[in-house]
Amino acid sequence: MIDHPVKYHLEKKEKHTGARLGKIETPHGTFETPMFMPVGTLASVKTMAPEELEEMGAGIILSNTYHLWLRPGEDIVDEAGGLHEFMNWDRGILTDSGGFQVFSLSDMRDIKEEGVHFRSHLDGSKLFLSPEKAIQIQNKLGSDIMMSFDECPPFDESYDYVKKSVERTSRWAERGLNAHEKLNKQGLFGIVQGAGFEDLRKQSAKDLVSMDFSGYSIGGLSVGEPKKEMYRVLDFTTPLLPENKPRYLMGVGTPDALIEGVIRGVDMFDCVLPTRIARNGTTMTSKGRVVIKNAEYARDYRPLDEKCNCYTCRNYSRAYIRHLIKSDETFGLRLTSYHNLFFLLDLMKKVRQAIREDNLLEFKESFFEEYGYNKPNAKNF
Amino acid sequence: MIDHPVKYHLEKKEKHTGARLGKIETPHGTFETPMFMPVGTLASVKTMAPEELEEMGAGIILSNTYHLWLRPGEDIVDEAGGLHEFMNWDRGILTDSGGFQVFSLSDMRDIKEEGVHFRSHLDGSKLFLSPEKAIQIQNKLGSDIMMSFDECPPFDESYDYVKKSVERTSRWAERGLNAHEKLNKQGLFGIVQGAGFEDLRKQSAKDLVSMDFSGYSIGGLSVGEPKKEMYRVLDFTTPLLPENKPRYLMGVGTPDALIEGVIRGVDMFDCVLPTRIARNGTTMTSKGRVVIKNAEYARDYRPLDEKCNCYTCRNYSRAYIRHLIKSDETFGLRLTSYHNLFFLLDLMKKVRQAIREDNLLEFKESFFEEYGYNKPNAKNF
Ligand SMILES: [Zn+2]
Ligand SMILES: [Zn+2]
Repeated sequence: MIDHPVKYHLEKKEKHTGARLGKIETPHGTFETPMFMPVGTLASVKTMAPEELEEMGAGIILSNTYHLWLRPGEDIVDEAGGLHEFMNWDRGILTDSGGFQVFSLSDMRDIKEEGVHFRSHLDGSKLFLSPEKAIQIQNKLGSDIMMSFDECPPFDESYDYVKKSVERTSRWAERGLNAHEKLNKQGLFGIVQGAGFEDLRKQSAKDLVSMDFSGYSIGGLSVGEPKKEMYRVLDFTTPLLPENKPRYLMGVGTPDALIEGVIRGVDMFDCVLPTRIARNGTTMTSKGRVVIKNAEYARDYRPLDEKCNCYTCRNYSRAYIRHLIKSDETFGLRLTSYHNLFFLLDLMKKVRQAIREDNLLEFKESFFEEYGYNKPNAKNF
Repeated sequence: MIDHPVKYHLEKKEKHTGARLGKIETPHGTFETPMFMPVGTLASVKTMAPEELEEMGAGIILSNTYHLWLRPGEDIVDEAGGLHEFMNWDRGILTDSGGFQVFSLSDMRDIKEEGVHFRSHLDGSKLFLSPEKAIQIQNKLGSDIMMSFDECPPFDESYDYVKKSVERTSRWAERGLNAHEKLNKQGLFGIVQGAGFEDLRKQSAKDLVSMDFSGYSIGGLSVGEPKKEMYRVLDFTTPLLPENKPRYLMGVGTPDALIEGVIRGVDMFDCVLPTRIARNGTTMTSKGRVVIKNAEYARDYRPLDEKCNCYTCRNYSRAYIRHLIKSDETFGLRLTSYHNLFFLLDLMKKVRQAIREDNLLEFKESFFEEYGYNKPNAKNF
């Protein structure tokens, strides 16, 4: 058995749903769960300074191995003293395996048992990523939580294909674990795949759980399937995972899916949504989406979200933010990004409080109602 | 006589040059001079938060009347409670008159005694700006220091044209002063024009000084003429201005010209240079320009400027900043913008210290030497 550098501490389960309240210990501090992780693809959470992420309560962020491998390259990050030092962030960092980007960004790819040959999305150059290589890169990046290299097949892929893929992902997970050179410094998670097939999810989880990873990710969801499908898969997948390890649902960041994920036993989430929509002037508020570019906000001197206590909402009006975004002023993107990230981090804080008070379903109901999810033709986020 | 809301206090003159050390009192605080003013064209100093400008020691910033008139419009700023409230900045704000933009951004213009008819640089719509209108807009913006509407002719314009232009600018200045509705809340500066002609500068200064403005700007310089020409004009222009009022040299922001301007008796400067070049990855350091995109910095783990104590230089390496800029990450522009603004504000702090210690010329000599200005084919900034 490994003495894992990343440890999960269960504090309590919510009475009605079994939702987990806990803490995750990493080599760079401990954070409370359920937690949302801001995404810093290229060693920067877009437009934000590390101090701002700290201020809004982020205990861990995510960076993308594939992107950092291409730019600036893992050796430069390593020479700088690792990702924490490089980007001036001393709390937790999780890196993905690069697998998802290989399958989502590159259309020329050739999947072999040894790994995947594909072309760079930047310049078309030939690249090869294997389970060992993905771990080597992450060992150099020095993240607190690493991911095994996996294949993420489309949700509607055939049963036969997904079965073969799941089996290969299990073999890749084992190869990755063997290649991991910093077992006591960096945790490694296995990624459960299996698309929408219950027996394949079961097989995947069984394989990975037998290998004693530091934690388990649920992959292959939030890839375009209906949310109901995602919840259905979570319903039978999280119970397959060990109680004493963290569970991470990859790529989820809409308020409803975060709450539904927590209800189904998930501890960690990440998504580019809050920063991506912020750059387009779209914000998430307690009353649902506010598209700040709209003309109706031109003379609206109220804060973005009257119930929000973030830097943006404490100091600026909708009229000002709209003006900045309409004028292509970068500071406008800082303000919307800050608010959106704060909004999701704060939502998770409220969710943790609701678990503590055993009223998560009531919280969900009132949040959904105010956010507008209960309206006919409700927006997706 | 007006009881000016903007007051200049001379503290001392440097023994060898006559350079002025002083303070300028505004309705939003007092700042030391000589001072460099960061430019926040559209009510935001590009990429920066107000708290960051405060932190780096900016006592006053500049915003552009023409740009704010077009977007979001002075009425929206007025309804928001004025520019300070709108942009969350409680120190000094200076607004220009819009005249410079009319002459530099618009190629369709028709200058009449009443004012200037021209077309918007955004959508080509027909616009009209007059001395009265420029003041009305600035009264609504609520800046601490406003500028008279002036014509800024090209430096190489003919004597006859410049003479007529100067006379008109004096008439426009008087009309602006009469239109000013908040004499006790907002200071108004007259702008001395006259291109490179000594007698026209003299005439312009005499006209404006007789009108008792809160301060005087020197316009029509830093518009493409050689620096030597600018210094020659300053040599005979600043002595024409009253000792007890602030003197502002418009559009100057290269380190050498800032120091030379101070030597010639200037108190205030502004320029988009530090933020504009920062967005292209070019920085000003104690050892001269560093173009951070260059390959030589890919593995350079030193700070941007080893002698600088700014947020950027205390926390990040050249390698990281280069990576961000190369990857189009906004945070990279924040880091270079922060440093460049800090560099000029810090330069002015050192200049003030040198005036205090009566060694401004020695300071200039050693700064020029280290910065690289003394090298053959020295860079322009
Ligand atoms: Zn907010
Ligand atoms: Zn610096």
